[in-house]
Amino acid sequence: MIARCRVALLGFGTVGSAVARRLTHPDAVPCENYLDFTHIFDRRSSMKRAAHPELAGVVWTDRIDDILQSDVDVIVEAIGGVEPAASWVADSLLAGKSVVTANKQVVARHGVRLRRLAARQGRQLRFEAAVGGAMPIVRAVAEGLAGDRITRVEAILNGTTNAVLSQIDATGCSMDTALADARAKGYAEADPSSDLDGEDARAKLAILCGLAFGLHLDPIRIPVRSAAHIAPSDFDDARRRGGTIRQLAHADYDYAASRLTAWVAPVVVPRSSIFARTVGPANAAVVTGAHSGETGIFGIGAGGDATSVAVLSDLMAIARDRAAIVPAPVLTTQFELQPSDFEPISDLPLRTSDFVLRTSDLELSSITLTEAV
Amino acid sequence: MIARCRVALLGFGTVGSAVARRLTHPDAVPCENYLDFTHIFDRRSSMKRAAHPELAGVVWTDRIDDILQSDVDVIVEAIGGVEPAASWVADSLLAGKSVVTANKQVVARHGVRLRRLAARQGRQLRFEAAVGGAMPIVRAVAEGLAGDRITRVEAILNGTTNAVLSQIDATGCSMDTALADARAKGYAEADPSSDLDGEDARAKLAILCGLAFGLHLDPIRIPVRSAAHIAPSDFDDARRRGGTIRQLAHADYDYAASRLTAWVAPVVVPRSSIFARTVGPANAAVVTGAHSGETGIFGIGAGGDATSVAVLSDLMAIARDRAAIVPAPVLTTQFELQPSDFEPISDLPLRTSDFVLRTSDLELSSITLTEAV
Repeated sequence: MIARCRVALLGFGTVGSAVARRLTHPDAVPCENYLDFTHIFDRRSSMKRAAHPELAGVVWTDRIDDILQSDVDVIVEAIGGVEPAASWVADSLLAGKSVVTANKQVVARHGVRLRRLAARQGRQLRFEAAVGGAMPIVRAVAEGLAGDRITRVEAILNGTTNAVLSQIDATGCSMDTALADARAKGYAEADPSSDLDGEDARAKLAILCGLAFGLHLDPIRIPVRSAAHIAPSDFDDARRRGGTIRQLAHADYDYAASRLTAWVAPVVVPRSSIFARTVGPANAAVVTGAHSGETGIFGIGAGGDATSVAVLSDLMAIARDRAAIVPAPVLTTQFELQPSDFEPISDLPLRTSDFVLRTSDLELSSITLTEAV
Repeated sequence: MIARCRVALLGFGTVGSAVARRLTHPDAVPCENYLDFTHIFDRRSSMKRAAHPELAGVVWTDRIDDILQSDVDVIVEAIGGVEPAASWVADSLLAGKSVVTANKQVVARHGVRLRRLAARQGRQLRFEAAVGGAMPIVRAVAEGLAGDRITRVEAILNGTTNAVLSQIDATGCSMDTALADARAKGYAEADPSSDLDGEDARAKLAILCGLAFGLHLDPIRIPVRSAAHIAPSDFDDARRRGGTIRQLAHADYDYAASRLTAWVAPVVVPRSSIFARTVGPANAAVVTGAHSGETGIFGIGAGGDATSVAVLSDLMAIARDRAAIVPAPVLTTQFELQPSDFEPISDLPLRTSDFVLRTSDLELSSITLTEAV
């Protein structure tokens, strides 16, 4: 009844190899009737092909043109980084392929352009895996709550940082020990700086600002405060005030004033909040709507297995409706990059004085952009 | 760019009037460019039209054929009850209309047949509002986690019962007092028996079993234990064991054995669990997947305003892609009604002895169906 859908994979790293495993294992129950996994692109395809005899039936290549000129219907982009990934996503859409991407940097920086290109091409660009791992926050905001006017998004969006902070909280260990533990468990890369510094979370927050508020916002506009130097003594301080510390991504939008307030920072959250209860590599988000109140979602936010669920869900959506219209973003407003608006916040103190998190607590450290008329 | 979509509303009660308010208020920002609200059907249309001069621009009627023979594109069914609602949904699809329904009884009992009819007609049947109010659990299970193999769903699905139980928990008041309070706040109907007895929650659970496991299950097959006689002393007992009482809907499915275990009952849940923290008219669900682990979602589960968000989101999905394919359900297995399988459980004690909720705690009270070969 449903035409089979031919799938190529770009990048055979953590996410790519997990997706390949799902696509070729009999456990992939919901997919086997829809998806034919035919191609893998990887820079080191000869080496990786040799290491994966179970994928001998798939065409491996290290030339992107072999994929673009193939007869695949959908390309899964799991390369990471901005370039060449962004260009290859565009090339894929131009070649008439739909694209599923797990790449938050590409979607955050080039999502508006790429989504418009996809709509123009009559193809789909889906990116559930770019934010929140398996937690379906992209669909929740873009579709499930589309009928509301969303005013605020507050979330833990980086599983690595959350694993490290909740480990320090639980054991009183040092940042170095917590990082070593996270690496041993596969939650942290060798260099976790983009996680701890907030660069990863702000890309995801920029994506959510686009979906929730219709804003086009370069992620570099969102101020970040690093969590790299949080020490056990900071947790002691937070604990005395009934809270703990989490890296939070915050955005609220005043539609009447066209004013966005956004930041990513380690902040003190009440012990009873959903954020304090989010431990290990989990993610959580609370979305506030004018009519729906607070809607929350939580789940495993990191790791190839969880992320592959989001990729597979997107692949199935495309397979089920090859001609589906994924609308180009309708922008409420567009914040152009004006370097003078950007205020570094690295010297601000951690606000442990007020454990009820409010925007005003971090007023000085937040970005407040008013639409240029 | 997007063709406007003409919308008719069936039923002008709590949900219907909230949807009408959203469709005609300027606050309905995301909708105003897509949706034309043209018709209202209500049995008492003359009386209600007179009471709502702000809706004078809409055609009111008490004859269903006026709607079926009109040029509307989408019909919102907000009548409630099984008949005539189910027949009118079918008639609407046969007349070439897409349908958005908030009616859990219709979807639970006739969803498979109606979804197949919709697919055959090339029209859409969407029902986010039938489960969980504004909480987008239908999309989370049917789309966001479609790429996983879901093994368990555990949820608070009835906002009225949750408001009553959490009120007794918080104040130690009697069931009657809690019910009066819930009625005063608009969380409970004059007759709350279908809420307290679990009939409402089991219809929603049957819908989720269809989406999560591909099962076709008449809701009457799911055993329920009423929460109507829970007293403050039951809470004292639960509290001594570190828990509290919530009406929980549980379903887990063993794919290898084709065995479903499902029930709705007031049970003791650990104080630290997401369910204990769900208070007032909120809903919450935890969905367990083989690859994604536990994904949770929570939000306001009752009331016209929250439910209207789900209806509007479905309307926007239809307006954005009028030709979208909403696939007919692919069934893993179909449980035919065999009265001998149904075991009443009203005489079972509340299991306060083990506050860690496990299926085995309620083994005797659960339904266990093995696929007939």
